[in-house]
Amino acid sequence: MKITINRKGYFSAAHKLYNNYWTKQKNIEIFGKCAYPNYHGHNYEYIVSVKGLINPETGLVFNLYDLKKIMKKEIEEFFDHKNINIDIKEFSSINPTLENIIIFIWNKIRKSIPKYFELKITLYETINNFVEYDGK
Amino acid sequence: MKITINRKGYFSAAHKLYNNYWTKQKNIEIFGKCAYPNYHGHNYEYIVSVKGLINPETGLVFNLYDLKKIMKKEIEEFFDHKNINIDIKEFSSINPTLENIIIFIWNKIRKSIPKYFELKITLYETINNFVEYDGK
Amino acid sequence: MKITINRKGYFSAAHKLYNNYWTKQKNIEIFGKCAYPNYHGHNYEYIVSVKGLINPETGLVFNLYDLKKIMKKEIEEFFDHKNINIDIKEFSSINPTLENIIIFIWNKIRKSIPKYFELKITLYETINNFVEYDGK
Amino acid sequence: MKITINRKGYFSAAHKLYNNYWTKQKNIEIFGKCAYPNYHGHNYEYIVSVKGLINPETGLVFNLYDLKKIMKKEIEEFFDHKNINIDIKEFSSINPTLENIIIFIWNKIRKSIPKYFELKITLYETINNFVEYDGK
Amino acid sequence: MKITINRKGYFSAAHKLYNNYWTKQKNIEIFGKCAYPNYHGHNYEYIVSVKGLINPETGLVFNLYDLKKIMKKEIEEFFDHKNINIDIKEFSSINPTLENIIIFIWNKIRKSIPKYFELKITLYETINNFVEYDGK
Amino acid sequence: MKITINRKGYFSAAHKLYNNYWTKQKNIEIFGKCAYPNYHGHNYEYIVSVKGLINPETGLVFNLYDLKKIMKKEIEEFFDHKNINIDIKEFSSINPTLENIIIFIWNKIRKSIPKYFELKITLYETINNFVEYDGK
Repeated sequence: MKITINRKGYFSAAHKLYNNYWTKQKNIEIFGKCAYPNYHGHNYEYIVSVKGLINPETGLVFNLYDLKKIMKKEIEEFFDHKNINIDIKEFSSINPTLENIIIFIWNKIRKSIPKYFELKITLYETINNFVEYDGK
Repeated sequence: MKITINRKGYFSAAHKLYNNYWTKQKNIEIFGKCAYPNYHGHNYEYIVSVKGLINPETGLVFNLYDLKKIMKKEIEEFFDHKNINIDIKEFSSINPTLENIIIFIWNKIRKSIPKYFELKITLYETINNFVEYDGK
Repeated sequence: MKITINRKGYFSAAHKLYNNYWTKQKNIEIFGKCAYPNYHGHNYEYIVSVKGLINPETGLVFNLYDLKKIMKKEIEEFFDHKNINIDIKEFSSINPTLENIIIFIWNKIRKSIPKYFELKITLYETINNFVEYDGK
Repeated sequence: MKITINRKGYFSAAHKLYNNYWTKQKNIEIFGKCAYPNYHGHNYEYIVSVKGLINPETGLVFNLYDLKKIMKKEIEEFFDHKNINIDIKEFSSINPTLENIIIFIWNKIRKSIPKYFELKITLYETINNFVEYDGK
Repeated sequence: MKITINRKGYFSAAHKLYNNYWTKQKNIEIFGKCAYPNYHGHNYEYIVSVKGLINPETGLVFNLYDLKKIMKKEIEEFFDHKNINIDIKEFSSINPTLENIIIFIWNKIRKSIPKYFELKITLYETINNFVEYDGK
Repeated sequence: MKITINRKGYFSAAHKLYNNYWTKQKNIEIFGKCAYPNYHGHNYEYIVSVKGLINPETGLVFNLYDLKKIMKKEIEEFFDHKNINIDIKEFSSINPTLENIIIFIWNKIRKSIPKYFELKITLYETINNFVEYDGK
């Protein structure tokens, strides 16, 4: 019997969507206002979901205090109040779409969660747009 | 590696739940206040979830600008500020329950999404009541 | 020292905006989709705000259990799952705009709240549109 | 073709996290502020998700009026305004973590839902922390 | 020209409503389930609103980093994961109604905010019940 | 008898807080992470509140369709997906704090609202931080 434990986190960041191999015109055509040159930004919200068995001694699948520390170190201190295109070197050559950011977050969190837990991330850019990824 | 991209949309509509083969009394017994004769209404919220592979050139699974256009044309212009029982001919003989509306929405959106993407719809009638359907 | 105690309530109803003295065309011109003939609907949310002095014996300004009963009887049983234009006789000749509905709600609640309390109503039609009225 | 029908419910309760076989110090070390001796509390929110086939006569998978009654009787009257550690005898020897509470809720609801429906519960302790369980 | 700057904070606590001079029966009659003997709890949310003139050098009315520190020290470390009736000595003889808690919070915050700013507190016990107080 | 009609709008933008007359060190000291050099961003939400008398012919204080157009033209097309420090010339010499942005928004909206209506703006930077301004 497996239970999924979820914790939500927050960061505010700037970005723009841009493919450097395309003309400015093609970028606007594909990415619309998201390709404006001087960046815009969002209050990102993300959910880390860890699925596994209950530890009968604690009654916990995964201690939320530990998960909070992992999320603070790996994601919030890393992304909060940053410009994703400029400040995060991995995105100097990768377009910071929701899809590419969620894979990056999943990989960063995965390293801190023992392998016998399943991991899923959900990432919101606005209340209307969000993505989900479970590594499969 | 597949990612699910989600977008939320909104429409306000009137409806009532009613089985024309039943007496008025049986309708009230089964559907309660939802069977009141002169209609009531809701602010419906719905989420379209499209799952697939990332296009490496764009960094996108499915362009949210395109999804927004599909949702506006297929769902919002179709349902918004309408009476579902009267104005939408398919529901003249089908009871507009959340379950029947979500199948209808899924079928309408499915036609505009290439077959190699998986599609799921979530439909909220109130903050407390909602349904999910993925075509399976 | 006065404190305001607030309680939120909910009802779902159908309505349309319509001035019977105008042509159909003028109604659409002024009220847009809200004037569509067969009604649409909303999940209305409303907040009743009662301001007054604390009763030192109870530590309460106004008992929320009593306020809940007043709101259920005066507003929720009256409006919920109704068609405001058809089912509520006062709106047979009054256009059920947010502004006219909030005055009606304020007057209905006012009768059950002793005069030494101030009363304010807030009424939401959608998450984006709402009105406020305090009787002044 | 199966549809999932969901309904959200609410209860407010007190609890603390505590393993009686551990010292006070170890409880604080593992459970942090959640182990404070005199209890704290939450506004719990939970979602009951029932998945099954549509009944063609009603257009419903499961009548929400029936689900509401089950939830009120099995969960809300049972947990609301209670101290989980003291008032609910099953938790006198089980630590009321989110994980143990959700299994308890799932088992209580399962008894009232026919076996040909799948059942999943989601339980929120705060807006940031929640768990999911589907009995598998 | 005055602007109001607002910041929201959170704490989870247990309490019960009880007047020690009344019988148990009268307490239940007046406070309902809130008077159950073993406490229940809530996720309280509160908003601190500070109104004043903009400092032209900073462009700020009141630095939100300073307000966050005041709120953490005065309110969150004080109330979070506590039993208000037992752990907070001021409430050993005062009934912890929303009304009495908000006056207590207003007085605690007032000491850290210079007198030329106006101060208002809003305190939510659930999404449906909340109070407001501005010291007048 | 006056009623306040409110409409909520949205824009996503990048900014940083910075006083050009200060050292980089002093900017970080006062504005913290908000002074990071490469900008961060937010999903801003704002509410326009217009208070006045009901027009008895329409039942409206102010037509929400007209208000929506004003908000789209004056605010959303102006701020959405922009960098406030770089793209909006008025903020080249004014620090884009919540306080300075709300005065700017109030002045822009005020020009389109007849003088016999009162106007108030509320501006959210995150779910926890927001400001209010009514021109007084």
